[in-house]
Order: sequence, then C-alpha cells, then structure tokens
Amino acid sequence: MSSTRSGGRSAIVRARVLAAASDLVTTKGPQNVTIPEIAQRAGVAASSLYRRWGDVGALLLEMAAERLAQKFPLPDEGSIEGDLRCWTEKIVLGLNSTEEPIFFRILLAAGDVAPEKRIKALAPRREQLQAMLERGRARGERTPTVEDLVDHLLAPLYMRALVGLPVNEALAKHLVERLLNTPP
Amino acid sequence: MSSTRSGGRSAIVRARVLAAASDLVTTKGPQNVTIPEIAQRAGVAASSLYRRWGDVGALLLEMAAERLAQKFPLPDEGSIEGDLRCWTEKIVLGLNSTEEPIFFRILLAAGDVAPEKRIKALAPRREQLQAMLERGRARGERTPTVEDLVDHLLAPLYMRALVGLPVNEALAKHLVERLLNTPP
Repeated sequence: MSSTRSGGRSAIVRARVLAAASDLVTTKGPQNVTIPEIAQRAGVAASSLYRRWGDVGALLLEMAAERLAQKFPLPDEGSIEGDLRCWTEKIVLGLNSTEEPIFFRILLAAGDVAPEKRIKALAPRREQLQAMLERGRARGERTPTVEDLVDHLLAPLYMRALVGLPVNEALAKHLVERLLNTPP
Repeated sequence: MSSTRSGGRSAIVRARVLAAASDLVTTKGPQNVTIPEIAQRAGVAASSLYRRWGDVGALLLEMAAERLAQKFPLPDEGSIEGDLRCWTEKIVLGLNSTEEPIFFRILLAAGDVAPEKRIKALAPRREQLQAMLERGRARGERTPTVEDLVDHLLAPLYMRALVGLPVNEALAKHLVERLLNTPP
C-alpha cells in the first residue's frame, strides 16, 4: 500500500517537475533553463531533481519526448507504407514550419547527456514507433526496424534541414519507397 | 589593379576575422560568441561583419567549414568504396572521441541561419566531396551523389549519436555497402 501511495506521490511530483520544465523552456528557450529554476517553480528540492535526472539535459529530454508522444501520436493507416508516408509528411511539415522545432532543439542542446540517458528519455517515442511496426508485422507485412526508421527516414530529413538542403514531401516519399524496397 | 588590391585586402581581413572567431569559439564555446567580440578581436568594424555575414551563426559556420576542409582532407584511396569506408570511419572516430565535435556543435547552434547561407557556408566541404566523387566517375565507377552521402552516410551516423544509439565501424561499413548496392 505504502509503495502504491509513494508511487502515486512520485508520479505527481514528476508531472509537476515536467510541467515546470515545459513552461520554462517555452519562455526562456532550452539553453537557458537550469535545475534550480525548475525545482523552484515546481516547489520541489533541487537535490531530488539532481538525484533523479542527474542533469538538466536529461530532464528536458524526458519532458520533450513525453510531450512529443502525447501531442503527436503516430498514424495507424492500415499499412506500413501508409504509416511511414503519413509520419514522414508530418516531419516535413514540422521542419518547414516557422514555429520552433522545440523537440529537436532540446535534443541538439542535450550535448552532455550520456547515451544511455538519451535512450531512456526517448523511450516513449521509441515504444510508439515499435507499436506501429508491430501492427504491420501482425498484418503479415515485411517491416523495417526502429533503427531503420532512425537511420533512413528521420536522419536524412533532419540532416538536410541542418545543412540547408530542401526537405519536402517528394523527398519523404522517395525515402519511404527506398527503405521499403531495400533488402534488409 | 585597385580591385586586385582590394581583393587582397579583403582576403586578409576575412582571414583575420575567421581566426578571431576560431579563437573565441575555442575559449568560450560557440553559443557564447558575438559579432562585436569577433570584430574587436580582429580589429575590424562590427558593421562590416554584419554586412558581410549578417549574423554570427553564418560567420561561425563559414569558419568551421573552412577549418574542417583544411584539417580533414578527404581520402583518395583509388576507389569510391575505399574512399567512403575511410571517410565514414573517420566520422565514427570523431563521434566517439571525447574531444568536442566542435564543427557539429556549430552546425547545431546555427539554428537561425537561413538555408541559403548554410549551403554557402558549407560549400568548401561540399566541393571536396564532389571532387572525391568526380574521381570515381572519371575511373568509370558508378558513384552516388553528394546528397546521397548526406542522406545515407552522414545523417544516420550523426542522428544515431544524437539519440544515443551505438555508432561504430561495423555500422559505417554496413551503411557504405547499403548505399553502393542500392539502385539509384
């Protein structure tokens, strides 16, 4: 019982911390947010935030990945090709919008976060991608792996945006076709 | 004559500005360098730097791309496969080294630089890649495009490093083979 209560309390504190972090990132930008500020805004001791996340980069990354998973659920179009087309088109829209791609900026700003913490923070999104691929596998489709999606869809779209090359729907379509037509 | 002299003077000023920018980035980190500081260190009016580069991100990017091209010439192994293997292995070493991947950090920090300025700043490296591919074409090899190298070699290596997935020689080898074996 007590562990349930403490789990509940811990979840409430976590939600308050992530909400405070989200507010601060929106007003100040990911580069300018610190653990003590988040702690103060959430009404929690900074020491407990350091204990749980270690550094501000890991905390922001966890917050951003959770928001991303909530705000942008992955498509369920009935086929892997349809899902990947729909998903990559949304990424293209995001990369071309004038709104700040806040999630990507947080990922980029997390330069000092250890690899294992990055993987942990990004777990919610990874699980959604995994579930989308599982649906395809259950339908008997040949499906790529999550790593394939990172390597051959996410990566080229973001890298092109980074170096200033065009990112558009035709490219997204081409990358999806290329991935699905390449032997594993 | 006067245009030659002015070209020479302009080249000297440019070299002084880029050297000042390089020094400041090394001591303060790319996030904390400003145009007025670079101007002061180089002994040049800040207004002329704003006129030439527009913003500090574009200036740092040009400096970083030039240093990259000078410090890390591309391989010439006698075959496209050998060149790409050698080049991607160096990228893997760089991503796994404890030294700061300063060029990548500058690219990431250049969030506000317009796409056409990014492309211009990255031109020296692009030309080196182009020359490497031209050598292969001249030898009669089927060669990928520079965009292919960005999409299918550079991008997955960097994106994996960003999300915390392993980046190693086996992956580099696999990506090169996959690129060379995929129909255009």
